[in-house]
Amino acid sequence: MARMLVLTEPDLRRVVQLDASAVSCIEDAFRSLATKPVVMPPILRLDIAEHRGEVDVKTAYVPGLDGFAIKVSPGFFDNPKLGLPSLNGLMILLSTKTGLVEALLLDNGYLTDIRTAAAGAVAAKHLARPDARSAAIFGAGLQARLQLQALMLVRPIERASIWARDPDKAASTARDMARQLGIPVEAGSTPEQACNQADIIVTTTPAEHPILKAEWLRPGQHITAMGSDSEHKNEVAPEILLRVSYFADSVAQTRRLGELHHAIRAGLIAEDRTFPELGKVIAGQVPGREDRDAITLCDLTGTGVQDTAIATLARSRAAEAGAGRPIDTQEPTGGSL
Amino acid sequence: MARMLVLTEPDLRRVVQLDASAVSCIEDAFRSLATKPVVMPPILRLDIAEHRGEVDVKTAYVPGLDGFAIKVSPGFFDNPKLGLPSLNGLMILLSTKTGLVEALLLDNGYLTDIRTAAAGAVAAKHLARPDARSAAIFGAGLQARLQLQALMLVRPIERASIWARDPDKAASTARDMARQLGIPVEAGSTPEQACNQADIIVTTTPAEHPILKAEWLRPGQHITAMGSDSEHKNEVAPEILLRVSYFADSVAQTRRLGELHHAIRAGLIAEDRTFPELGKVIAGQVPGREDRDAITLCDLTGTGVQDTAIATLARSRAAEAGAGRPIDTQEPTGGSL
Repeated sequence: MARMLVLTEPDLRRVVQLDASAVSCIEDAFRSLATKPVVMPPILRLDIAEHRGEVDVKTAYVPGLDGFAIKVSPGFFDNPKLGLPSLNGLMILLSTKTGLVEALLLDNGYLTDIRTAAAGAVAAKHLARPDARSAAIFGAGLQARLQLQALMLVRPIERASIWARDPDKAASTARDMARQLGIPVEAGSTPEQACNQADIIVTTTPAEHPILKAEWLRPGQHITAMGSDSEHKNEVAPEILLRVSYFADSVAQTRRLGELHHAIRAGLIAEDRTFPELGKVIAGQVPGREDRDAITLCDLTGTGVQDTAIATLARSRAAEAGAGRPIDTQEPTGGSL
Repeated sequence: MARMLVLTEPDLRRVVQLDASAVSCIEDAFRSLATKPVVMPPILRLDIAEHRGEVDVKTAYVPGLDGFAIKVSPGFFDNPKLGLPSLNGLMILLSTKTGLVEALLLDNGYLTDIRTAAAGAVAAKHLARPDARSAAIFGAGLQARLQLQALMLVRPIERASIWARDPDKAASTARDMARQLGIPVEAGSTPEQACNQADIIVTTTPAEHPILKAEWLRPGQHITAMGSDSEHKNEVAPEILLRVSYFADSVAQTRRLGELHHAIRAGLIAEDRTFPELGKVIAGQVPGREDRDAITLCDLTGTGVQDTAIATLARSRAAEAGAGRPIDTQEPTGGSL
């Protein structure tokens, strides 16, 4: 009766990777947001200031999918001092018809990593110049790596540079990525230099003050700003928003949590001004890049619809592969596990 | 490393029951809300109208507790047609220090049932007359049963009546309760009659139009209205709020989701008027019942702090009892379950 499928991180790593099908899954999610009566409530956010902790809960119902995810994402930024990762969490997949929990995806944040990187690929696919060949990545953490890998799925990237506050970390990430991806990846000596040489710039940091300046940009570039997902984070100088064609994953979210939030606070953009969303570009409802010389910027804060999409993909892949193990919640664990 | 304790519904039923310690656990939770810098964000709510479904996610951080719960409560009201219960769900217990998930409480709503009934006991303990001997319960479902059982933990209840729209269900619940509790429990023929004879009235229904009328009340009664937890539910005639000493579990919530919401909408009470919360009465910060003749009403919508409290209790009881089974999220399920 009350059976759920339990999938652990290795189970999920086995069935879902950052590849063309993950990108297409997330592309479909954004398209749904534009074309279907998706229900996506505001993020639930709990702050535990005394432990530098925060938890986001995201969800979305997408008509046509038989499941919807509720994702719990804790970020506790003193964890590295304890030898633990800052980011963790899990997803719960429920039936859209009965509300019964169908699967527990105990991914420790893995699926979030994949769906976040895939969103970067989707943004570049629909907004960057088709011949974009060089990338600059700001940040040297896991998303820096995944975002570069994601770009290579959608654009003919031939070289990249990594810039991070910590030059050693940038150098080591650059070395790893060069080896993994088979293209030259260098550590940029300055953020300006990294920018200058790039057709696509992806910012992946938790910066609280802008790390990307307006004067470094040149015509034809595309920027994906995916680091900011809360009020105090800000990677892109607010005046940049006046110089670019701006797109958002969800304007309702970026207005509160993204780069748009800071441009509004700086008084550069009216609070009620609307902007096109990535899903509408995908659906052909609004134009994307105007011409070769436009500078496009996609502001990503991470949406529940991406979580529902990747969780649904994971569950169907797990079913095909026979991965995971059922648990009957009406049996004592002694008997059922 | 990434180990969680998995507890199923029978495991949880074994370690947590509706008893004095559950009541005291929930009483502490309400006290904390009044005396500590509890962080309790607004409820996340997702509606899936086409399947008459809704999901609430609640959470609260209580300083001093080493864990906090995130509770997922789906209610899908066509489920009984499919032979499934309407209410389901689970709780996740996370470390307040690291955000790591420490336990999965796969309770199918059991802990919610207990903490909700316990809140009824806490309300009666602090607001009903000490010599309250008779109870009227509106509704004949599980909460009707549990609320009556809860009252008996805190007041010398000698007789009770059950009123419900469906007289057969009321009669059958009354019979069961009389047998279980060892007191006379009758099915009230009218709601008015049930009210007339009662020192304590508890409304436990999903009514969308008031079932309790002002003219039925008499001096000295206490009312706990616990059925409404969303905008469209309304058990108590709005004008009753003008005749009673009103208390809430959380005014921020009852203003949006409780009986208070309807009194505000009816124009009877100003939107910004504040009211005492149950926790402040428990903490001795505000008076409860003024005198023997006052009519008190406690408006309960269900709070995240109750979930955190009951989940913490369940985890510590499970540890004592050796209940549940660990799962390592970094191992494939084939190997770990």
